[in-house]
Amino acid sequence: MKYRFADRMSTTHKSFIREILKVTQDRKVISFAGGLPNPKLFPVKEFADACLKVLLQDGENVLQYSTTEGYLPLREYIAQRYFVKRGLKANPDEILITNGSQQCLDLVGKVFLNKGDRIIIERPGYLGAIQAFGIFEPEFVPIPLLDDGIDIGLLEKALKANQTKFFHTVINFQNPSGVTYSRQKRERIAEIIKNHDTVLVEDNPYGELRFMGEDLPSMKNYLPDRTIVLGSFSKVVTPGLRLGWICAAPDVMEKIVVAKQSSDLHSNYLSQRAVYQYLKDNDLDDHVLNIREVYKRQRDTMVSMIEEHFPQEIKCTKPEGGMFLWVTLPENVSSLHLFKLATEKNVAFVPGRAFYVDGGGDNTLRLNFSNSDEEKIEEGIKRLAKVIKRALTDNR
Amino acid sequence: MKYRFADRMSTTHKSFIREILKVTQDRKVISFAGGLPNPKLFPVKEFADACLKVLLQDGENVLQYSTTEGYLPLREYIAQRYFVKRGLKANPDEILITNGSQQCLDLVGKVFLNKGDRIIIERPGYLGAIQAFGIFEPEFVPIPLLDDGIDIGLLEKALKANQTKFFHTVINFQNPSGVTYSRQKRERIAEIIKNHDTVLVEDNPYGELRFMGEDLPSMKNYLPDRTIVLGSFSKVVTPGLRLGWICAAPDVMEKIVVAKQSSDLHSNYLSQRAVYQYLKDNDLDDHVLNIREVYKRQRDTMVSMIEEHFPQEIKCTKPEGGMFLWVTLPENVSSLHLFKLATEKNVAFVPGRAFYVDGGGDNTLRLNFSNSDEEKIEEGIKRLAKVIKRALTDNR
Repeated sequence: MKYRFADRMSTTHKSFIREILKVTQDRKVISFAGGLPNPKLFPVKEFADACLKVLLQDGENVLQYSTTEGYLPLREYIAQRYFVKRGLKANPDEILITNGSQQCLDLVGKVFLNKGDRIIIERPGYLGAIQAFGIFEPEFVPIPLLDDGIDIGLLEKALKANQTKFFHTVINFQNPSGVTYSRQKRERIAEIIKNHDTVLVEDNPYGELRFMGEDLPSMKNYLPDRTIVLGSFSKVVTPGLRLGWICAAPDVMEKIVVAKQSSDLHSNYLSQRAVYQYLKDNDLDDHVLNIREVYKRQRDTMVSMIEEHFPQEIKCTKPEGGMFLWVTLPENVSSLHLFKLATEKNVAFVPGRAFYVDGGGDNTLRLNFSNSDEEKIEEGIKRLAKVIKRALTDNR
Repeated sequence: MKYRFADRMSTTHKSFIREILKVTQDRKVISFAGGLPNPKLFPVKEFADACLKVLLQDGENVLQYSTTEGYLPLREYIAQRYFVKRGLKANPDEILITNGSQQCLDLVGKVFLNKGDRIIIERPGYLGAIQAFGIFEPEFVPIPLLDDGIDIGLLEKALKANQTKFFHTVINFQNPSGVTYSRQKRERIAEIIKNHDTVLVEDNPYGELRFMGEDLPSMKNYLPDRTIVLGSFSKVVTPGLRLGWICAAPDVMEKIVVAKQSSDLHSNYLSQRAVYQYLKDNDLDDHVLNIREVYKRQRDTMVSMIEEHFPQEIKCTKPEGGMFLWVTLPENVSSLHLFKLATEKNVAFVPGRAFYVDGGGDNTLRLNFSNSDEEKIEEGIKRLAKVIKRALTDNR
């Protein structure tokens, strides 16, 4: 039988990164490829207690169908935390619980994108966003990331040139580059966006994972009506529950609710209740502090190992937080070729090309430091250093 | 700020049924409107045990990111049960875990529908399907349901007239009508579908809830490559976890996996693991038998109360299973008018109009019997009978 699929499915490649992650499932492989948290930091015992509590106290309700928007006390908690941590005034009615921030991207695509609509993304860009938005067949306008955020001149030029539905940014510790937007850049972007008929999607899964420097304002502080903020419990509690949230102005939220309802009615209610119970019975700030300390050590180990073992000509970012380093090889060295050599030596990463919708980035790669302990990082970077030296020689 | 949404959002009405369900949240109201299971039947204690077991035995894994397809042993369990219960040969690779069967509908829409594609649905049709598919802006071709399934003559005519992407059917104890397709009708449909370039979507959330008569073959027995089967744990275990599955041929599954990944990466992994543990440690057949007995009693109570108290001219189905009765008022009596009168007397149902994409059904209504115990059913039907008598008088 020859099936007739929708056009959108022909443009979505069977994810390249999916294929890469398969290679890394071998236990011998030290993988810096995925984007997984360190599971040793999961609050297993505390979460089990919370699960049991809500099930035994209110089982018939926590297992029943629930509302599309999500559990109100959990939405109130998020709104309150936004206010305390980021000075953001968000009404719980402007928050809807999703299946991780990946579903936020799907809902934003559903609600905003007609086929052919222009959207601005970062270059390199977040792969999950490229995949989610890609389903709705937009025209991607990738704009280069500099050390302190997107290239402002090109952003303004792109917005002036053509109507743009939205600009998607991973504003803190960007995936894949690790870049964080500076305060000045945030202010300039706000001024520019104000003058155009467009929306800003602030994707912020890593925001709480800051190891150094000061927290910077959300774009919603500057552009309350025009900013849609996406958040997630994946990096601060646990990802397997698939719980995230979307925060948007009431007119947008009205559409998001309709899209969420038609997508899956509502998110897992037991998990919403259990996460709320966990947050009530434990101190999230303490827990986040612990995650930050561990990830900072892992980042520091990776950076110092790279400084020690990689050839001088290899450049590497030192992000202020998050989960990723971004490595730039000499112009003529292919990270795809390096990937093949690396897997032979049982070490893996993501070749940078995956993050460029318009091609390019062939000499870049992403390294994850959150999912490996320091011992593994040391051994993995040593292996990688050897392979890089070989790749440099191959190229001479 | 004036937002520019996607065209698809202008065609999706803020769900009428959503508004109705709001009315029913008042505790004074006896609601036959929703489609909820009876929460007294949830295996709370057993499920809490299962949750605790997987968390304490394998917490770091059950809280981590997982695969898009879902937990393999759970998919094997579903495949095995399909084989034992329905004689269906399905490879676990042809099964993907979703967020309830609502997400199956969304994924089918994503994978198959271009704007303007024709799809055949039942008339009256399942509202969740109308909403999910509606997002992809198809042309709905509603074909009337008779007592034993869809009108075969009109089905064949519609398939001949124009290319049709798929035919969506809730084949057992249909929502809203309660209709179950006869064996003869299933066979005829298989013959017809074979001769056309189309696919059959067999939506079967209620299949296990049969109170009388014999189980009938899945359409996948007749049309293995062309049938996509949608299933759910919502009606046999619990709905709050949002766990369902989609079973499709490998070429279709390949696309479904891509769509699922871009939608939300994967479904809640803790719940997949806990449901599997629950199924391993308990006898689902026993549990389903218990649900069937309770729902049969509730159906019988509702039917006999209707026979006793409703005026003679009101017709009502007596479905062989599922959760709904379908009531037909005299031609000139509006169920929307009746709804207003009923809510004043604190009893609610869904006016039939909601289930007709092309208008009509004004004198029909849906009653849910699964979510109310017998006492409430008795009182609710008495209230409704009084209101119906008044509506009939209003019309004379």
